[in-house]
Amino acid sequence: MRIRVVNPNTTASMTRTIGAAAAAVAGPGTVVEAVNPTMGPASIESHYEEALAVPGLLEQIAIGERDGVDAYVVACFGDPGLDAAREVAGGPVIGIAEAGFHAAAMLGRRFGVVTTLARTTGRAHELAERYGFASLVTEIRACEVPVLRLEDPTSGARELVVEECRAVLAGGADAVVLGCAGMADFCAEVSREIGAPVVDGVAAATVLAESLVRLGLTTGRRGEYAAPPAKPMSGLLAGFERLPSAAVTVGAGA
Amino acid sequence: MRIRVVNPNTTASMTRTIGAAAAAVAGPGTVVEAVNPTMGPASIESHYEEALAVPGLLEQIAIGERDGVDAYVVACFGDPGLDAAREVAGGPVIGIAEAGFHAAAMLGRRFGVVTTLARTTGRAHELAERYGFASLVTEIRACEVPVLRLEDPTSGARELVVEECRAVLAGGADAVVLGCAGMADFCAEVSREIGAPVVDGVAAATVLAESLVRLGLTTGRRGEYAAPPAKPMSGLLAGFERLPSAAVTVGAGA
Amino acid sequence: MRIRVVNPNTTASMTRTIGAAAAAVAGPGTVVEAVNPTMGPASIESHYEEALAVPGLLEQIAIGERDGVDAYVVACFGDPGLDAAREVAGGPVIGIAEAGFHAAAMLGRRFGVVTTLARTTGRAHELAERYGFASLVTEIRACEVPVLRLEDPTSGARELVVEECRAVLAGGADAVVLGCAGMADFCAEVSREIGAPVVDGVAAATVLAESLVRLGLTTGRRGEYAAPPAKPMSGLLAGFERLPSAAVTVGAGA
Amino acid sequence: MRIRVVNPNTTASMTRTIGAAAAAVAGPGTVVEAVNPTMGPASIESHYEEALAVPGLLEQIAIGERDGVDAYVVACFGDPGLDAAREVAGGPVIGIAEAGFHAAAMLGRRFGVVTTLARTTGRAHELAERYGFASLVTEIRACEVPVLRLEDPTSGARELVVEECRAVLAGGADAVVLGCAGMADFCAEVSREIGAPVVDGVAAATVLAESLVRLGLTTGRRGEYAAPPAKPMSGLLAGFERLPSAAVTVGAGA
Amino acid sequence: MRIRVVNPNTTASMTRTIGAAAAAVAGPGTVVEAVNPTMGPASIESHYEEALAVPGLLEQIAIGERDGVDAYVVACFGDPGLDAAREVAGGPVIGIAEAGFHAAAMLGRRFGVVTTLARTTGRAHELAERYGFASLVTEIRACEVPVLRLEDPTSGARELVVEECRAVLAGGADAVVLGCAGMADFCAEVSREIGAPVVDGVAAATVLAESLVRLGLTTGRRGEYAAPPAKPMSGLLAGFERLPSAAVTVGAGA
Amino acid sequence: MRIRVVNPNTTASMTRTIGAAAAAVAGPGTVVEAVNPTMGPASIESHYEEALAVPGLLEQIAIGERDGVDAYVVACFGDPGLDAAREVAGGPVIGIAEAGFHAAAMLGRRFGVVTTLARTTGRAHELAERYGFASLVTEIRACEVPVLRLEDPTSGARELVVEECRAVLAGGADAVVLGCAGMADFCAEVSREIGAPVVDGVAAATVLAESLVRLGLTTGRRGEYAAPPAKPMSGLLAGFERLPSAAVTVGAGA
Repeated sequence: MRIRVVNPNTTASMTRTIGAAAAAVAGPGTVVEAVNPTMGPASIESHYEEALAVPGLLEQIAIGERDGVDAYVVACFGDPGLDAAREVAGGPVIGIAEAGFHAAAMLGRRFGVVTTLARTTGRAHELAERYGFASLVTEIRACEVPVLRLEDPTSGARELVVEECRAVLAGGADAVVLGCAGMADFCAEVSREIGAPVVDGVAAATVLAESLVRLGLTTGRRGEYAAPPAKPMSGLLAGFERLPSAAVTVGAGA
Repeated sequence: MRIRVVNPNTTASMTRTIGAAAAAVAGPGTVVEAVNPTMGPASIESHYEEALAVPGLLEQIAIGERDGVDAYVVACFGDPGLDAAREVAGGPVIGIAEAGFHAAAMLGRRFGVVTTLARTTGRAHELAERYGFASLVTEIRACEVPVLRLEDPTSGARELVVEECRAVLAGGADAVVLGCAGMADFCAEVSREIGAPVVDGVAAATVLAESLVRLGLTTGRRGEYAAPPAKPMSGLLAGFERLPSAAVTVGAGA
Repeated sequence: MRIRVVNPNTTASMTRTIGAAAAAVAGPGTVVEAVNPTMGPASIESHYEEALAVPGLLEQIAIGERDGVDAYVVACFGDPGLDAAREVAGGPVIGIAEAGFHAAAMLGRRFGVVTTLARTTGRAHELAERYGFASLVTEIRACEVPVLRLEDPTSGARELVVEECRAVLAGGADAVVLGCAGMADFCAEVSREIGAPVVDGVAAATVLAESLVRLGLTTGRRGEYAAPPAKPMSGLLAGFERLPSAAVTVGAGA
Repeated sequence: MRIRVVNPNTTASMTRTIGAAAAAVAGPGTVVEAVNPTMGPASIESHYEEALAVPGLLEQIAIGERDGVDAYVVACFGDPGLDAAREVAGGPVIGIAEAGFHAAAMLGRRFGVVTTLARTTGRAHELAERYGFASLVTEIRACEVPVLRLEDPTSGARELVVEECRAVLAGGADAVVLGCAGMADFCAEVSREIGAPVVDGVAAATVLAESLVRLGLTTGRRGEYAAPPAKPMSGLLAGFERLPSAAVTVGAGA
Repeated sequence: MRIRVVNPNTTASMTRTIGAAAAAVAGPGTVVEAVNPTMGPASIESHYEEALAVPGLLEQIAIGERDGVDAYVVACFGDPGLDAAREVAGGPVIGIAEAGFHAAAMLGRRFGVVTTLARTTGRAHELAERYGFASLVTEIRACEVPVLRLEDPTSGARELVVEECRAVLAGGADAVVLGCAGMADFCAEVSREIGAPVVDGVAAATVLAESLVRLGLTTGRRGEYAAPPAKPMSGLLAGFERLPSAAVTVGAGA
Repeated sequence: MRIRVVNPNTTASMTRTIGAAAAAVAGPGTVVEAVNPTMGPASIESHYEEALAVPGLLEQIAIGERDGVDAYVVACFGDPGLDAAREVAGGPVIGIAEAGFHAAAMLGRRFGVVTTLARTTGRAHELAERYGFASLVTEIRACEVPVLRLEDPTSGARELVVEECRAVLAGGADAVVLGCAGMADFCAEVSREIGAPVVDGVAAATVLAESLVRLGLTTGRRGEYAAPPAKPMSGLLAGFERLPSAAVTVGAGA
């Protein structure tokens, strides 16, 4: 089984961290490949950046389809382009916010989230509502460390995340979801420190994607998620009109 | 006052129809300009196309900022890129689904929606939930006429829309929202035929955008909708990193 | 276009403040007339007073219908008698809580409210729920200044409102709605002080009422909001039975 | 114990039916008195009529306070003036929609409602939402018999109600609430015919009012439902300003 | 009328306290009998204990059916086994959380709950949601006194409950529900101390059970709550297969 | 890794079917063991039977703890005893309704359910609400085949399930969940016939339980799901008081 984990930003070091987190939990016989687009933003911390990350993500899905990938993980906590990716991927596609919420929901009655910047919490609440988890989320807190500083050991990110996780537990949550793919590498350590289950969305999405493949399940195709109709694309994005037919030649990533 | 109505697809004839609908309701002294991007899909009927329409839309917002536009209308019923546009536009930005729902909500207790293809109704329900109107929407029906066939008099679109509107009224709605910018030109006629208020989102968004400008109001900037942080953009979208600073030179539309 | 703004209490000085706020935002060519009933309470700060303000409000609607008014604003934050007014008015009727919520909803993801007395916040929550905005309202705070003391410069009302607005922003709101018609005259000043959008319901309702008239829209008449059946009225309210047929002779206001 | 059942319309024959239904279920030692105002509409089938029924209802509460009444029932399915009545009554006040919903909620998982005119179903849904029962209500159906024709044996009202009740059961409800005080006298018969529990709101409100008195409970007075502030009332309603202090002399009912 | 109040734990002293609270509010002519099972846990403070209390509770219902009981109260705030009891009892069955919520809902707009251990608040929230009261509950607080220590005058339970009730009122509730049958005996005293209505679920359930009997109402039998199908039971619970047919001989309680 | 699948009824043939479905999807190296209690009902089709199945289920969890099991599946669509099992199991516990809902939620926007008897749909709706999926469930339909007749090839169960699944798809669902462990063996065949994803809860729960173990996650223990306090148990259930300490000797299953 081949699982492709797509980091929708263009920062390769973050892609490596994400790939390691995914590979660490994949079952025997599963190949995990972490990739990122060559077009789009270096990190995603606004609606603007999220929107501009989606074409590159969709290009990676097209490449994956050409390569015979079985399932995809979208490794940014805003789950950018998830619906669009589901329309064009043959196998299941899982977002890491989606996966983190699903896993946490099975660990007790309610859970909280600790993410990077407060400006992203609106989107996280919107996703929780969309997936059905609004009533299970106690709160969504921010440690106010930007995505690309999470990897910097001088940022104090891990300590700040531990602190916010403790506040989440004090508010009555049974578990905590970490709200950024860049937090994947200190998830286990945070869990030990706070003495409660902590969910990394990248790892969760990887095993859930494997699970669906194992169950023989993929996105339903009879309505909203049918393949998009063939249609002209213009200008910079002209190359994308061939995407649904599986081969793609746009951009440096192809 | 200058209101720019952005049709996020690349079909110029549809932009003209939309511009006429907006101009017909604008107040004295308001200049309405209808534009469309030169990059992206010819029409929007899937999540995939919606995602690929957003960069072109954001480019138009950047051009509008350079031109001193006071407010924007996003003229596609999926309200694509609305949050991103709000981050980078100085004035208010209104989506036509958003506007149609707001107007209809003031005409009674509940309203229904008649849109083009059934595959788009999931997104419409999601928007109704996001804006707070889920409990006011009786149902969202589709006439199954593709967007670009709405203008074709042989498509029977108007008759099909009338029929679906009547079904919506029979279900207890006080008003009907038409769920596509391409239906703007037969809104009044449909209303007369069914004997109930029918809302065209393009017209509604135009007067609501004017209203907010008149009230001196625009998007709050202290949290989620602050200007995005400066950040490198790569590949095909490299030109977009300058967007927040208001001038843009990418693509044929610039 | 004639917009009639009905202050449902009997305090003429407050009617003048309200009228000025409405006139300040009305478009060119729109005539704004502010009126108040001669029957009912001097101000509205309880369910009891709200209920007793409604007959006088309905009398003003009847007078408006005789006068050929195009649309009405109900200028009390409890939106008293709104459903009843919609049954008997030919044109649209907008409440100021309703209008404030609609305007604020288009300025970001969520908004808060600052009102007069805590005892009125239950009604404000009920209205938010009714109009669909319950999930968008972060909180409703009270400055504990009675309605008729708002105009008194020694009440410190403006400062108290600023303080509560700041608390609302700290709680994550993108915008603030002022929850009393009597706050209309210091709305702009409060907005400048807190650096975030602040919505006055009177102004918002005025431009929304104009918007609906411009769109050719009014309350749907096929169900709940059809004209009430002709029916005997007894006692003090005997004069009201002729109201639906547009002429009214009861009370000192006629 | 004295329970006063207030029919908020002015039709004395309906007051007698209501009084009989209440008396039939009251416990030993409880005195049930059915009254109606002398001001206001002959029946209530619109928001307009409901609003105009409230002053007369509040006058009856004032009279009841003077008479030492222990608890009140508001016997119209729109529960008009309930919040206002709670502010001025010393003892508990129960609406018949409220009571019908509470009783039905204890008879299974979900219940439906059969009422008079379809135009009143919006209000019934609003009340279900307000009291918390929205998720328990399967549907609200109308038999389209006007209130004052319910008593007419040639109206076929009972047969129509049976038919609508059967439709409610087919939709998965465990019980049915009859949505009009005027249906009180055929409740038991309908229940026998359909073989399922049928709740008359008048009877339910009577025993619930008794229950609260027996428990020593009444409306909480520390916030929203504190006695209204003393305040001038003008015009036709001038007499109402003394209501909170318990004696009232306005109108023919005093 | 015979009301049987079933304390689902095996602690006889608590059964006596519960019986006294129920008898104190029952109407003239109503016989209240308080019983407890002989199988199961000494008190209920976890899901595990709640689950193991249910067989004993159902045995008591079977005994009650044999004895001709008219209605039942389940006197534990988790309302254990309520749905199962409704399937096998001929008359109505009321849980004390259910009853407390219903009574409190009629005393204002919103109410709070004060219970024993924080670990039980998840279940209380779940019940509030199930019965429809989630939007009416302001908060559920715990005094952290175990059930069986409530009776111990050295536990300081009453003082701790008063303190938590005051916090509930400060949060905007109009009334408070006490969340444990073991708090029944100091309910009135707590209410006097805090100056607001305080509801004891045992008393509330007793008068509500009487009310339903007086109305001639019981659980609807046409769907979910029909008598369970006849079916073999094995092992320790073999005796329970005869329960639906009304006579039971298992255990020491029979 | 050892996953124990507990069929909470006592029918061994059904346990074998369930075990086969679980084993078919388990990953390499995972041992799946299907067991059932020796006490309790032969099948579960009512609240009464569900309640009486829980002690036997908890006994199986105790046995599993003694045996060093890593995770548990509760293989009945009512998810009986799930909260109690989570308190006493060291590893994660997944219900098959829970698992089916989670899996289906990742295959599109909304899903429907096809179950056995209509009388069980209330419980299924309650679980959907509890887990957060109420807004994602389009409908829950019943084929009206009793649990133990599903295995009988003359029952026509598979054909009836196909028919109900088609109705679910026509209602707009993207996927279907089969609502009974006894339907596990024809899940794949039904999916092929209807051309849409069909989820068997047993298989889904098995891979989700594996997933959580792989992620190193189990139930949070700091609040509601801490181990139950030590406490006396009486009568038939006396043996259960030792359960939390991991060894159990009651009943034939021990």
